[in-house]
Amino acid sequence: MDKKNISSLLNNILDKNLNSYKKGKVASYIPALKKVKPNLAAAVMIDMSGEVYKVGDWSYKFTIQSMSKPVVLALAIIELGEEAVFNRVGVEPTGEEFNSINKLVGHPKPFNPMINAGAIAITSLLRENFKKESFNTLLNFFKKVFGNKNLKIDEEVYKSEKITADRNRSLAYFLKDHRIIQGDVEKSLDLYFKQCSLKIDTLDIARVSSVFANRGIDPITGERIISKKIASIVRSIMLTCGMYDRSGSFAIEVGIPAKSGVSGGILAPVKNRFGIGVFGPSLDNSGNSVVGMNVLKGLSEELNLHSL
Amino acid sequence: MDKKNISSLLNNILDKNLNSYKKGKVASYIPALKKVKPNLAAAVMIDMSGEVYKVGDWSYKFTIQSMSKPVVLALAIIELGEEAVFNRVGVEPTGEEFNSINKLVGHPKPFNPMINAGAIAITSLLRENFKKESFNTLLNFFKKVFGNKNLKIDEEVYKSEKITADRNRSLAYFLKDHRIIQGDVEKSLDLYFKQCSLKIDTLDIARVSSVFANRGIDPITGERIISKKIASIVRSIMLTCGMYDRSGSFAIEVGIPAKSGVSGGILAPVKNRFGIGVFGPSLDNSGNSVVGMNVLKGLSEELNLHSL
Amino acid sequence: MDKKNISSLLNNILDKNLNSYKKGKVASYIPALKKVKPNLAAAVMIDMSGEVYKVGDWSYKFTIQSMSKPVVLALAIIELGEEAVFNRVGVEPTGEEFNSINKLVGHPKPFNPMINAGAIAITSLLRENFKKESFNTLLNFFKKVFGNKNLKIDEEVYKSEKITADRNRSLAYFLKDHRIIQGDVEKSLDLYFKQCSLKIDTLDIARVSSVFANRGIDPITGERIISKKIASIVRSIMLTCGMYDRSGSFAIEVGIPAKSGVSGGILAPVKNRFGIGVFGPSLDNSGNSVVGMNVLKGLSEELNLHSL
Amino acid sequence: MDKKNISSLLNNILDKNLNSYKKGKVASYIPALKKVKPNLAAAVMIDMSGEVYKVGDWSYKFTIQSMSKPVVLALAIIELGEEAVFNRVGVEPTGEEFNSINKLVGHPKPFNPMINAGAIAITSLLRENFKKESFNTLLNFFKKVFGNKNLKIDEEVYKSEKITADRNRSLAYFLKDHRIIQGDVEKSLDLYFKQCSLKIDTLDIARVSSVFANRGIDPITGERIISKKIASIVRSIMLTCGMYDRSGSFAIEVGIPAKSGVSGGILAPVKNRFGIGVFGPSLDNSGNSVVGMNVLKGLSEELNLHSL
Repeated sequence: MDKKNISSLLNNILDKNLNSYKKGKVASYIPALKKVKPNLAAAVMIDMSGEVYKVGDWSYKFTIQSMSKPVVLALAIIELGEEAVFNRVGVEPTGEEFNSINKLVGHPKPFNPMINAGAIAITSLLRENFKKESFNTLLNFFKKVFGNKNLKIDEEVYKSEKITADRNRSLAYFLKDHRIIQGDVEKSLDLYFKQCSLKIDTLDIARVSSVFANRGIDPITGERIISKKIASIVRSIMLTCGMYDRSGSFAIEVGIPAKSGVSGGILAPVKNRFGIGVFGPSLDNSGNSVVGMNVLKGLSEELNLHSL
Repeated sequence: MDKKNISSLLNNILDKNLNSYKKGKVASYIPALKKVKPNLAAAVMIDMSGEVYKVGDWSYKFTIQSMSKPVVLALAIIELGEEAVFNRVGVEPTGEEFNSINKLVGHPKPFNPMINAGAIAITSLLRENFKKESFNTLLNFFKKVFGNKNLKIDEEVYKSEKITADRNRSLAYFLKDHRIIQGDVEKSLDLYFKQCSLKIDTLDIARVSSVFANRGIDPITGERIISKKIASIVRSIMLTCGMYDRSGSFAIEVGIPAKSGVSGGILAPVKNRFGIGVFGPSLDNSGNSVVGMNVLKGLSEELNLHSL
Repeated sequence: MDKKNISSLLNNILDKNLNSYKKGKVASYIPALKKVKPNLAAAVMIDMSGEVYKVGDWSYKFTIQSMSKPVVLALAIIELGEEAVFNRVGVEPTGEEFNSINKLVGHPKPFNPMINAGAIAITSLLRENFKKESFNTLLNFFKKVFGNKNLKIDEEVYKSEKITADRNRSLAYFLKDHRIIQGDVEKSLDLYFKQCSLKIDTLDIARVSSVFANRGIDPITGERIISKKIASIVRSIMLTCGMYDRSGSFAIEVGIPAKSGVSGGILAPVKNRFGIGVFGPSLDNSGNSVVGMNVLKGLSEELNLHSL
Repeated sequence: MDKKNISSLLNNILDKNLNSYKKGKVASYIPALKKVKPNLAAAVMIDMSGEVYKVGDWSYKFTIQSMSKPVVLALAIIELGEEAVFNRVGVEPTGEEFNSINKLVGHPKPFNPMINAGAIAITSLLRENFKKESFNTLLNFFKKVFGNKNLKIDEEVYKSEKITADRNRSLAYFLKDHRIIQGDVEKSLDLYFKQCSLKIDTLDIARVSSVFANRGIDPITGERIISKKIASIVRSIMLTCGMYDRSGSFAIEVGIPAKSGVSGGILAPVKNRFGIGVFGPSLDNSGNSVVGMNVLKGLSEELNLHSL
C-alpha cells in the first residue's frame, strides 16, 4: 500500500469512528482529566521506514498515565535486568480491573507490570536503585524513546494524582507490608505520579510505538534504544495484559499489542509494520479509549495487522 | 464463694498455667514488644461489689493495643450514636486474621469493629468529628473508664507503630478510596496509633472489664460511665468477634466476652459477675495470649462463668 | 414469673409481631416451601420443669431443614467423638451466606457445622461410619431428642430437595475433591436431604430446644439424652454461627443461641431457662424467619434472656 | 528453509530437549495416565503445503484431554454462533489454575473456554442443543478436523475420568446452580469426559493444528473445515489462555498460540506457517508438557515463529 493510500485509509477509519465516543465516558477522578472535550480524536502511524501518517487532533496534549508502564518496564529491564524485574512482578494476565487489590490477597507478588500494583512495584524498584536520580533517569529515557526533548510533567495533573491516589497508596503500602517493595513508599509513589503525569500528544505515542514495533530501533533516527529481546518482552506483555480486563477480547478482535491510558491514548506497536498511537478521551468500562480501540480494529482489519 | 477462696483459686489457676507461655511466641513486629520477658503473667478480678483480686505481675506495664477497640467503640456510640457507628462498620464475625484485607474486597464496609479495618474506621469517625480535640476526648474517656488519671502514651511504642504500620496504612487508604472513611488518613491513623500505645497494666484491664461487666457502672466508684445498652452491645461484639479467628473456639471453651491485644493482655467482662484482666506476652497463632486464655478457661470452669 | 403470666406474655409478643411477616419473603426454591401461607406464626416455650407454653399455629407441620444441623452435630459428637468431628469441620463463624463456597477456596475445611458445607461434611461422616444404618441411626436419635416417635420424612420435599440441590452438590463434590469427605457423595447427600426433610411442628422445635437448654436432660421426661458438655458446645456454636450472616447482629440484639431453617422455624435454647421454638415462614435476606426473630427479641427483653 | 533442513532441525531440537522431562512429573490422578513412560517424546510439523515432518514417538497413543477444548470451541461457534457461545463464557485470561473455582465466586460466568469451568459450559451447550446426537456430532467434527476416521474413545480413561472427576462435578453443579448451564449435569459431564478421552497421537495433534494455522483449511486435503474468522478467534484465545497460569510467560518466551493437555500433548498452530504437535508426558506445575514447551521454544527461536 502506498503512502497516499495509507493516509486516506487512516482518515477514513478515524472519520467513521468519530462518533463512537458517545458510547463511553471521560475519566473524572481528577479535575484535569474531567474537563477535556470528549469528542477529541487522533491517530498517528509510523512505518518502519520512518514515514509518519497523522490525522485528527494529533498535537493535542494529554498526560501519559498508564501508557508509561511499558516504557518504564523497558527501562527497568535495561537498567536492572530481567531477573530483578521479574522476581518482583509476574507476567500473567489477571482478568481483573486496573486497580484491583483482589489478586494480591494470598499472592502479594503482582501478577504483571501493566496493572497498577505491578507498575508501582517496578517504579519502586527504580526509586530504590537510583534514589534521588530516579526521576532524571526516567525522564531522560522517556525523552529518548519518545524522540521528544521537551517532555515535561503536567504539574496540575501531578498534584491532583498525588492528592487523590488513595487506592494506589493502599496498593503500595500493601506491597511494602509484604516486602515486595522496599524503601520510602511515599517517594516511590511520588515517582509513579510523576511518571504518569508526563505531557504528551498522539504523535509522541506513535513514536514510542514505532520503537517497540521496529524491535527496539527508532525508525526515524535509526538509533537502537531498546534491545530486540526487551522490545519483544514488552510487546508480548502488552498483548496479554495491556488492556486490563478487556485484554482477551482485544486480542481476539484486534490482535495488536496495546497499552491504554486513562487520559484516552493507546500505544500500539505492530512488529515490523507500524508504530501506532491513537487518542480519544471517552473510555469504556475497563478504562480503554472507545474511539482508539475502534480505530485500531479498523486498521487491523484493513491492513491485516492481526498477529494471531 | 468468699473472698479468700477466690484469691486462692486465682492463684492456683495462674500457677498451673504459668508454663504454657512456652507454647506461644512474643510479638516481634516492633522492638518495644519484642524485648518483653515471655514468662511474665498476671490476673486480676474485680467483683460487682468492687472487691479486687490480683495475682502475678499485675503492675507490669504494657501497651493496650487492640484492647482499646471495645473502649473506643463504646466512646463512639456514646458520642455519635449507634446509627453513625454501625452505618460505617458491621457487627459480623469474619473468621479471618486481625489485619485481613480479604473480606474488604467487594465488601468495603469492615465486618466488625474488632478487626483492624473496622477499628480504624471507628477511630477515623472520632477524628472526623472531634478534629483537633480527638485525642483529648479519647484520652479523657479512657481515664474515666480505666479509673486511671495518669494514663499516658508509651512514646517509643507510638513512634514504632507509626513507622512500621504498612498494613494498617494499606487498610486505611483502601477505606478512604471506598469512602468508608473521610478526611486526612494520616491524622486518623495517628489517632489510632496513639490509642493503641496507651500504657496500662493488668489492674487497668480489670477495671475497664468491671465497668462492662457491671452493665456500665464502675463497681468501685458506683459511677455510671456507659449506658446499659452500650455495655451489652460491646460485650456481645467481643464474644463473637473479640478473639479474631479463634473467637468461635474461645466461645465454646470459655464462653466469656473477651478482647485480646498483641501485647499479651485480654480484657474479659463477665456480666453481673466479674471484670477480669489477664496478661502474658506469649501469643498463639491468632495473636491471643496463651497464658491469658488458659487462665480464663480455668476461671470459667471453676466459677461457672460460661455464658452460653 | 408464674405460669399464667408467661402464657399471656407469649401471646402478647406473638400478637404484636404477627404483621412483621410482610417484611420478608417465603422461600421459593422448591414448590413445597413456596406454597405455604406467609402469615402463619407460632411460638412454644418449655421451662426447665417441663411446663409447656404454646401459642399460634404451633401444630402446623413443616420441614426441619437447617434446624437439623445442631441435632446432627450432637449425634456425631456422641457417636464419633469431638476429635473426629472437629478434625473435619471448624467452629469459626464466617460472615457469609448459608451456601457460600467462598471461604472454601484456599481453605477447604468448612468453617463451621451450621453452614451447608460444614453440615454436609458432618452428615457424610455419619454416612461413612454407619453406612446403610445411617438413616436409622439418625432418625432414632431425632425421635428421642424431639420426644416424637412419629417423626417422618416429607417425601415431596425430600424429592424436591434431591432434584434442585445443585449448590449442595457442588459443595459436596468440592469437599470430596479436597478429601474432606470420603465415600459415595450421592449417598451422603441423600442422607443430608432426608435429614432436612423431616416433618416437624413448633412444639417439636421447643422440645429439642428444651433438651439443649436443660444441659442435655429432657425436662419433660427427665432423661439425659446429650452430655452436659456436648449441649454446651452445640449452644455455643449456635450463638456464634447459627443465624448465618446475621449471627453477629442477632447475638447483640437477642443474645440467645439459635438455629434457623429455611422453612421458617428457629430453634433457640436458653441455658437453664427455656427451650424455645418459633415459627413464621417469611424470611429475611439471610434466610431467617422475620416473625421468629422478632418474637425471640421480645422474649429476650421481657424475660431478660440475653446471655451476653 | 527446505524440507530436509526442517527435518533435521526438528530432530536436533527434540534431541536437545529429551532429558528435560526430568524437571517435570507425569499426571497421576488416574491410573491410565500414571503408568505412561515419562521419557516418551515426539514432535510433528505440517507446513501450509501439507508437507509433514515427524520425529520421535509420534505414533504413540494418548488421550486428548484439554487439547479437545479449542476443537469443541470451534464446533460450538460453527453450530450455535458466536453470540450463544460468548454469552455463556468469556474470553479473558484468569491467571489461575486449570480447575480453579476461585474466579467463579461472585462471577459465575466462566472467564474463558480453556479452563475447565468454561470448557464444561461449552460442552454442556452442545449437549443441551444436540441432546442424544451430541456425541456423534462432536465425534464427526473431530474426525474431520483431525483427518482421522478411526478416532475412538479410550474406554479405560473415560471410566476413570468419570469416577474421579469430583472437582469437575463441583464446577458443573456450581454452573448449573447459577443458571450458566442447563439440563442434566451428569449428561453434560458424560459428554465432557468422552471428549477428553479421545485417543490420539502426535501426528493427530499436528493435523488439527495445521487446520487452525491454515486459517481453517486442511493443508493436506485442501478442504475448508472452519471459517477464517473462527480459526482466528480460537488461535487468539489459545494464545492468551491456552497454557493456564503460564499463558503469559509462554506468550513472552514462545509467542505461539498453544493448548496443552494433561496427557502431555500441546497443540500449537502458527498462522500461515505450521501446524505443530508436540508430546512428552512429564508436566510442569501448571500442567504443561516440559519437553513440549521446550521444543516449541526452540522452534520459535530457530524458525522465527514468535507472533508478538
